[in-house]
Amino acid sequence: MPQPHLHPVRVYYEDTDFSGAVYHANYLKFMERAREHLLDPDALVRLWNDDGIGFVVYKAALTFREAARFGDDLEVRTTVARTSKWRLSFQQDVWRVGADKPLVEGQVELVCTDTGGLLVALPAVVVDGLSARGWTG
Amino acid sequence: MPQPHLHPVRVYYEDTDFSGAVYHANYLKFMERAREHLLDPDALVRLWNDDGIGFVVYKAALTFREAARFGDDLEVRTTVARTSKWRLSFQQDVWRVGADKPLVEGQVELVCTDTGGLLVALPAVVVDGLSARGWTG
Amino acid sequence: MPQPHLHPVRVYYEDTDFSGAVYHANYLKFMERAREHLLDPDALVRLWNDDGIGFVVYKAALTFREAARFGDDLEVRTTVARTSKWRLSFQQDVWRVGADKPLVEGQVELVCTDTGGLLVALPAVVVDGLSARGWTG
Amino acid sequence: MPQPHLHPVRVYYEDTDFSGAVYHANYLKFMERAREHLLDPDALVRLWNDDGIGFVVYKAALTFREAARFGDDLEVRTTVARTSKWRLSFQQDVWRVGADKPLVEGQVELVCTDTGGLLVALPAVVVDGLSARGWTG
Repeated sequence: MPQPHLHPVRVYYEDTDFSGAVYHANYLKFMERAREHLLDPDALVRLWNDDGIGFVVYKAALTFREAARFGDDLEVRTTVARTSKWRLSFQQDVWRVGADKPLVEGQVELVCTDTGGLLVALPAVVVDGLSARGWTG
Repeated sequence: MPQPHLHPVRVYYEDTDFSGAVYHANYLKFMERAREHLLDPDALVRLWNDDGIGFVVYKAALTFREAARFGDDLEVRTTVARTSKWRLSFQQDVWRVGADKPLVEGQVELVCTDTGGLLVALPAVVVDGLSARGWTG
Repeated sequence: MPQPHLHPVRVYYEDTDFSGAVYHANYLKFMERAREHLLDPDALVRLWNDDGIGFVVYKAALTFREAARFGDDLEVRTTVARTSKWRLSFQQDVWRVGADKPLVEGQVELVCTDTGGLLVALPAVVVDGLSARGWTG
Repeated sequence: MPQPHLHPVRVYYEDTDFSGAVYHANYLKFMERAREHLLDPDALVRLWNDDGIGFVVYKAALTFREAARFGDDLEVRTTVARTSKWRLSFQQDVWRVGADKPLVEGQVELVCTDTGGLLVALPAVVVDGLSARGWTG
């Protein structure tokens, strides 16, 4: 399996709440940004515009171990496996850069749907793109 | 002119930032919720789904006088005028309930576009609906 | 056990993404609003301001079964149990009003921390408040 | 005056709404990220933690000329002037990279407050930092 995909995230005002920490739901945003880059955002745009196929989160499970704060430099470390012809499974952990354990651990499962919301098999362009980079799932 | 339209807003964790106050951009969300209710959200849904017409913010100007905080009960007080066949102009002020002056003052101008992003005249259903309630603009 | 706590949610522009559906992370916001009302937001404000104690999400698990859309009237149906002296466990399902199955199912675990981020036992005022309403956990 | 400060922004799912365009309030987020980098985020963190001084948006005015969409690469072009000992005034325009006119034009005024919300003069560390880079305002 390849090294985890790394996506940097800077913590801005907008990410925090009055407790001083990053608002819990925002880690799902950080994880999605990372997935888009891993999957190739231009391919995602073409899939949506040309074929009406979109990726949808089917399951997400998060464990929050420590708080990130304003000004922190984080990174999302992502690995991905194709667990069936319908489903991609991501392990996505959010680290403070240089720390020795993650702040947040996540598992996210994606499926694809057409514009009517019906499940469709993972598109070949995405599966092949992942395989070409060693994510053979 | 009718009494201002009142829309209640409760301040949740999600609305605040680490300074303890409501994050400034979120007042635009509060104002949009109020406009949707004033304009009739079901009519907006039908306009979009049936006619491909949507409302778009063209201009927004905000003055932030005092901070709202977690747990505050706010209300958005809105008046609206039709300033041309293309444009609705809203005065939207955000008050803490029972206060003697607003926290935030806003002016927001809306126009309508088709799905291609081209400007279209304000739909009769919206103009008539506003007139029927005294917003003759 | 009491009937589930019901919290209404209207889907606004801000909640959706370009796929037309509610953005997945926003269901965590809807669930938090419901928890705040169930726990009593004024008590939460006092706990934070007077004692420096805040509630923190420790775990969240979501299954997304169907998409909510702009203009939908939703409700969050919440039950809660105290699973230890440190932890509250919530089952929170998001329904379209009048539907026969939930759109999103969630399990969320909360703990309390002091301002330094250290774990503290659930405050008596919250535990007693839940017990008084039948959530004996 | 120096060249405008450039801050890149990638448009993600989270930034869009069901119309397909970037949700209008999110441009204020993009502009704030740019201001933080221009002002030096580490200095902002120290000011807050050590001196209890924070920057607050006092006024914001936005004109939305064209919509940004999922996958777009944007940049925020910012210039800043000190308009009094109390106030910084930013011109912030959001461009699609390579375009010949901006999508959104903004003017944002910042002031500083202490933790009690009272106005304080702009801190020397910020004023000097801007002057050293040619923003003599």
